[in-house]
Amino acid sequence: MNDSALTPERILDAAEEVLRRYGLAKATVVDVARFLEVSHGTIYRHFPSKAALRDAVAERWLHRVSTPLAAIAEEQGSAIERLHRWFEQLMTLKRQKVLNEPELFATYSAIAQEARGVVQAHIAELVSQVAAIVESGVSSKEFKVTDPQVAAKAVFQAMVRFHHPAHASEWSDPDIDTDFAQVWRLIVAGLVVGELMV
Amino acid sequence: MNDSALTPERILDAAEEVLRRYGLAKATVVDVARFLEVSHGTIYRHFPSKAALRDAVAERWLHRVSTPLAAIAEEQGSAIERLHRWFEQLMTLKRQKVLNEPELFATYSAIAQEARGVVQAHIAELVSQVAAIVESGVSSKEFKVTDPQVAAKAVFQAMVRFHHPAHASEWSDPDIDTDFAQVWRLIVAGLVVGELMV
Repeated sequence: MNDSALTPERILDAAEEVLRRYGLAKATVVDVARFLEVSHGTIYRHFPSKAALRDAVAERWLHRVSTPLAAIAEEQGSAIERLHRWFEQLMTLKRQKVLNEPELFATYSAIAQEARGVVQAHIAELVSQVAAIVESGVSSKEFKVTDPQVAAKAVFQAMVRFHHPAHASEWSDPDIDTDFAQVWRLIVAGLVVGELMV
Repeated sequence: MNDSALTPERILDAAEEVLRRYGLAKATVVDVARFLEVSHGTIYRHFPSKAALRDAVAERWLHRVSTPLAAIAEEQGSAIERLHRWFEQLMTLKRQKVLNEPELFATYSAIAQEARGVVQAHIAELVSQVAAIVESGVSSKEFKVTDPQVAAKAVFQAMVRFHHPAHASEWSDPDIDTDFAQVWRLIVAGLVVGELMV
């Protein structure tokens, strides 16, 4: 490949393909360079270290989750309905990934374990989307919480079974949709009534 | 050791010590027999297979969690206060185990992965304890839920971050007690108000 045609995006495509073929333990920057028919020095001009490339791969993967969710957070209309749809979409996106390509999902989960900073930024982004929906629900008098940011973090954590990769093996359980619905009902009731002095 | 003095309890003590020393991958029934100075045939008279011994070890370990919690479930008094204390105690018990003996905790978590039936029975037992507290809260008019069993399962799942071993690495996070308190506030508000038609 002509070096000047090499964009970060093409390197990330190649890195994903290499990860798909070899897995995280065996994949190297040299494999990515070989796949693109460039020298590994060329890769390093775009990503100064293997860790930088790994983080960029993780970041792009996580954006594929956060971008469609951001669209829901920015919509108008009932906050309750949007928050429900937001969590359903989050679970659907994760579940599709694990069911369609279980090995790639495992690889990306392993990458995420190493790219802690990227994952923390991703979670902060998701919680801020939830906070935006909760805040609009407070404005529309659907929700009665004093601190939307705090409530958003609590909701996100209470739904953890339905989005955290550590629970991926539970997502093929036939009861999972019922479980999701029941936890959701409990949580939305909590948001509607707000904090109680108990 | 005199074979007739060999109780299942002593075998389980020995098995736990062997697991502590060698870990799950290396520990064998022969190691347990050697530790007790009996033949491995003697062990098999009490536990017909390695899987049976493994399940009994897992069961006893999980009873150390469920037994003190059962006491809280059976107490009188405010359901809200007891339910809060029940989940605090669950988190405290798990956290102590992981902080005091991280390797043994990892070993037991690995055993639990294999002893699925034992773990399922344990979870069913814990959910039924939560259901008993929720039911008493419905009687005392503290909670307004139509099906305490369904609500109990939802509450247990919404609190999963604070008791499932997959989240053990998060339990040393300095924010974990605040997170627990915020998720709890959301959930208890949901139980107090009951299911909403939303």
